[in-house]
Amino acid sequence: MSERHRPVPSVGMVGGGQLARMTHQAGIALGTDFRVLAGSPTDSAALVCGDVRLGDDRGLADLLDFAKSCDVVTFDHEHVPEPVLRELEDGGTVVRPGRSALQHAQDKLRMRTRAAELGVPCPRWRAVTAIDQVEAFAAETGWPVVLKAARGGYDGKGVWVADDRAQALEVLERAEQNGVRLLAEEKVAFRRELAVQVARSPYGQLAVYPVVETVQRDGICREVIAPAPGLDDDKATAAQELAIDLAHALDVVGVLAVELFETEDGVVVNELAMRPHNSGHWSMDGARTSQFEQHLRAVLDLPLGSPRTTAPYTVMANVLGGDDPRVYGRYIHVMAKDPEAKVHFYGKEVRPGRKIGHVNVAGDDWVDLLERARDAASYLRGDQD
Amino acid sequence: MSERHRPVPSVGMVGGGQLARMTHQAGIALGTDFRVLAGSPTDSAALVCGDVRLGDDRGLADLLDFAKSCDVVTFDHEHVPEPVLRELEDGGTVVRPGRSALQHAQDKLRMRTRAAELGVPCPRWRAVTAIDQVEAFAAETGWPVVLKAARGGYDGKGVWVADDRAQALEVLERAEQNGVRLLAEEKVAFRRELAVQVARSPYGQLAVYPVVETVQRDGICREVIAPAPGLDDDKATAAQELAIDLAHALDVVGVLAVELFETEDGVVVNELAMRPHNSGHWSMDGARTSQFEQHLRAVLDLPLGSPRTTAPYTVMANVLGGDDPRVYGRYIHVMAKDPEAKVHFYGKEVRPGRKIGHVNVAGDDWVDLLERARDAASYLRGDQD
Repeated sequence: MSERHRPVPSVGMVGGGQLARMTHQAGIALGTDFRVLAGSPTDSAALVCGDVRLGDDRGLADLLDFAKSCDVVTFDHEHVPEPVLRELEDGGTVVRPGRSALQHAQDKLRMRTRAAELGVPCPRWRAVTAIDQVEAFAAETGWPVVLKAARGGYDGKGVWVADDRAQALEVLERAEQNGVRLLAEEKVAFRRELAVQVARSPYGQLAVYPVVETVQRDGICREVIAPAPGLDDDKATAAQELAIDLAHALDVVGVLAVELFETEDGVVVNELAMRPHNSGHWSMDGARTSQFEQHLRAVLDLPLGSPRTTAPYTVMANVLGGDDPRVYGRYIHVMAKDPEAKVHFYGKEVRPGRKIGHVNVAGDDWVDLLERARDAASYLRGDQD
Repeated sequence: MSERHRPVPSVGMVGGGQLARMTHQAGIALGTDFRVLAGSPTDSAALVCGDVRLGDDRGLADLLDFAKSCDVVTFDHEHVPEPVLRELEDGGTVVRPGRSALQHAQDKLRMRTRAAELGVPCPRWRAVTAIDQVEAFAAETGWPVVLKAARGGYDGKGVWVADDRAQALEVLERAEQNGVRLLAEEKVAFRRELAVQVARSPYGQLAVYPVVETVQRDGICREVIAPAPGLDDDKATAAQELAIDLAHALDVVGVLAVELFETEDGVVVNELAMRPHNSGHWSMDGARTSQFEQHLRAVLDLPLGSPRTTAPYTVMANVLGGDDPRVYGRYIHVMAKDPEAKVHFYGKEVRPGRKIGHVNVAGDDWVDLLERARDAASYLRGDQD
């Protein structure tokens, strides 16, 4: 970085979504030289960032050009194809997290394979290409069986729950038509879903956040309670250690989010993301260092900030778009009703079911906080008009 | 606002300094449509803001043009001349705070006159144009006498302490040569300096922050302790009520910062500012709603946020430039030493004595916090290299 004789190193984030928007917000305080590569000037981050480059955020030519202006390149999403990442790295771009780490967030088969090697607890799983393989798997785990696309799934897309052979066959056939590799996973009888964020710098420093509870409905994260209420210490420690082990073993740089199932006996890994993640948005108003600041510090190889909580509990609720796009009017009512609620808007056009913002509420009583955060989010959606 | 059929109203801030930079940062969460009028693309706010208009931030033509794109115009500084403000308002621009309020922050003679009418406690003062007036004043208050330029002073500039007739004469002569009106003020025997922020919306809603202690050296604010340690309840309440009364009486919209002297008997008003102010930077990491978010909410006539503190104490220390401009290297050491310290950089070129950032530290023990904040700021300046 100092080779370029800049007073501060420059970070480029690939993708102009809300994660880039909130990373920019955190970077303002750090005084970083931050830019985004966005597909459109109306992308969430492009609306607020001082240095926006427009281009294809998955294509080699635009990425190579973007990288010229950056000391470090990092990501708002996992959709840059592996060959493109390889070309970037081969050309000398500092990519954080790097390709070899990122492939585990991009490809669920690789992630499961590596996790198995590392002895990290996962649901039972198997790569499947034919219905007899799914049936053999179901004979061990019982129906239903969860079928997942190895690549490209998020927010419930790319995940199918097959109750029987016929449903599984349908998923297999569609996958084959679309050239999608599948894996079968047992449907875990979980108590609840958890998540944990850990940041890791190239130097090897780690900072781990408290384990949180995530509440999903229709495959979409709706609320997060930080820390997870009533989680016993053994499980919390196991979850944090597992995240730390994964971050080390996969050589992650930046924030790693590990989504988990809590079972009777312990925790098992559901998904990984190597970027700031929805399950960490609470940290913006509930931790000394937000996950966005932490991600920047990590990819810049700066000393990490304290992940300590600033309140006993922080609850986050996602604001989804409703049928009525006039959010601003409802926003005023939410502000008036709860002056402690922190509303974060992404500047996105309102479409039904789209994540357009989130609300954080911090305090002592998580039951009260959850009610207030849910209230605010559902009012903003228009459910209570 | 709704006349323009925009999903959210647009706010334009006049001036591209660090206050505009931090207001933009707060506005990202609110989802406001925010822009700045900056003199240069390297201005603090211009470096990070998504919508920057370049122009003369004190001149009528550029302000009128800027105002066309804004539902509300507000300010990073007090330097827009009153006739320009009048033209803007006459042309239909929504200016918040308005001209009639702003003149009390722009002109110390008007402020003292109005404060006297309102019965707000102030130091003894008198408008002075000749040395015999100063001597007559000194005969009442004793020497030294504080002489202030009615307009344009900040950070110790525009304020002179005259120990005797000869020194006062020199100030008077220079003032006359430069067409500067003066007022004489008694040198208050204060225990310490305090400040209080209050936000007021057009609707008339008010939110007042705790009274803070400000520590000045060489006429520049160096540290702020929030809340002021050991301040007795009567004085704290008097200071907050005085700020509320002033905000109402002067019809302030936005944040009003009142700088005060604490005396044996009470508090007296030193200066006013009608914008986010250095004495409120602690709120970024120590209050539920920062002064920057609060200013935006107020000028947009949104319900105000809770000014409640999130820690028993928060201490802010200003980072001044030192002789060595290589701040980034030192920055890493500060982060490593104190992972809880929140460093806010303004993206400014380092010049000796220039405010280039600030550090906030929040916790339980203000003595420890003050030491840590001072340490960080002085290390960043280069004093401890």
